[in-house]
Amino acid sequence: MSKPVSDIVIGRLPIYLRALTRLLEEGQTITASKDLAERLGISSAQIRKDLSHFGEFGKQGMGYDIAYLRDQLKSILQVDRLWDMVLVGAGDLGHAIVHYGGFEGRGFRVACVCDNNPQKIGRRLGHLEIYDTAHLAEIVRQREIKIAIVAVPADAAQIVVDQLVEGGAKAILNYAPITVTVPSGVRVQYFDPSIHLQRMTYYL
Amino acid sequence: MSKPVSDIVIGRLPIYLRALTRLLEEGQTITASKDLAERLGISSAQIRKDLSHFGEFGKQGMGYDIAYLRDQLKSILQVDRLWDMVLVGAGDLGHAIVHYGGFEGRGFRVACVCDNNPQKIGRRLGHLEIYDTAHLAEIVRQREIKIAIVAVPADAAQIVVDQLVEGGAKAILNYAPITVTVPSGVRVQYFDPSIHLQRMTYYL
Repeated sequence: MSKPVSDIVIGRLPIYLRALTRLLEEGQTITASKDLAERLGISSAQIRKDLSHFGEFGKQGMGYDIAYLRDQLKSILQVDRLWDMVLVGAGDLGHAIVHYGGFEGRGFRVACVCDNNPQKIGRRLGHLEIYDTAHLAEIVRQREIKIAIVAVPADAAQIVVDQLVEGGAKAILNYAPITVTVPSGVRVQYFDPSIHLQRMTYYL
Repeated sequence: MSKPVSDIVIGRLPIYLRALTRLLEEGQTITASKDLAERLGISSAQIRKDLSHFGEFGKQGMGYDIAYLRDQLKSILQVDRLWDMVLVGAGDLGHAIVHYGGFEGRGFRVACVCDNNPQKIGRRLGHLEIYDTAHLAEIVRQREIKIAIVAVPADAAQIVVDQLVEGGAKAILNYAPITVTVPSGVRVQYFDPSIHLQRMTYYL
């Protein structure tokens, strides 16, 4: 790992991890890069090359031990632990995110919720109390939270992101349909359903 | 276009389209594959190769005309029109999707909503009436809807998907954290926030 691995390679690792987890759930224990390739629509050469950045995971002609490779990927991606996240925005989307069942076992949990609506502050969302967004930077700092989900209207997103950065957040998943600016060292991923839809319209 | 273009290439086109749209909004009119590459973390050779499947879009040393390339990509992806979508699930997530501002100008609109909750059927979600999911296949067939968004609990997702397929839907964006089975000729994309989060934890 002398040369840094590109973002695009890192971006594929979670896809491999999800596929391996599914294979295990289906009862498989060994897989070949060829099978993974077919499942994912990524060439087997690409998969082998991506994984080779991190070590030797399979023996020639023997395939990969799925559980072992899954554990290695979890460790590489640092999701072999549980990350506390702050959710900003307790609207419809915030509710859906708190009740979303897809974080479990993936390395994440919503640990705290903020909103700027006085009607919501102090009330509960699921088992979490809703805090005032005015204290967002302070909450993030005190709890040493590194990951945030932004689920506020587009015109509030940049302000919220600035507060998150001030508090020390390093990874932001932005659901607002707007591009935000962050200093280097902070990463933003955009949730964008149109991208997923446009991947299918080509075939219609 | 004698050889079919791979899913993975098609999957990158919406990313290019989004980047080009942003560049235009920022006032740029010409871009080089090198600039796009830096913005997207994809190599410029890859970008040129991806685009070359569909024709000649730039002149050597001249860069790409952004508006022209954007229009071509819209046409290739078939989002130079407006696709009516059916949304299944009028819960928190369904509300968030109906009020989401990120479909506009991207080729999509929620044209109709279904739910199986008698308390919700007949009421309104935004400007749309909520229909009974029992009639889902019929609604999809009658309105000739090709694209669906599934925003129901995990244990209801497969049933809903089966009804959508029966009605003739060909492209499904599944928000439920569960893998669904569809016949060949029908495409499913998964909305999976954990994948986005795992792309950032590597760097923490």
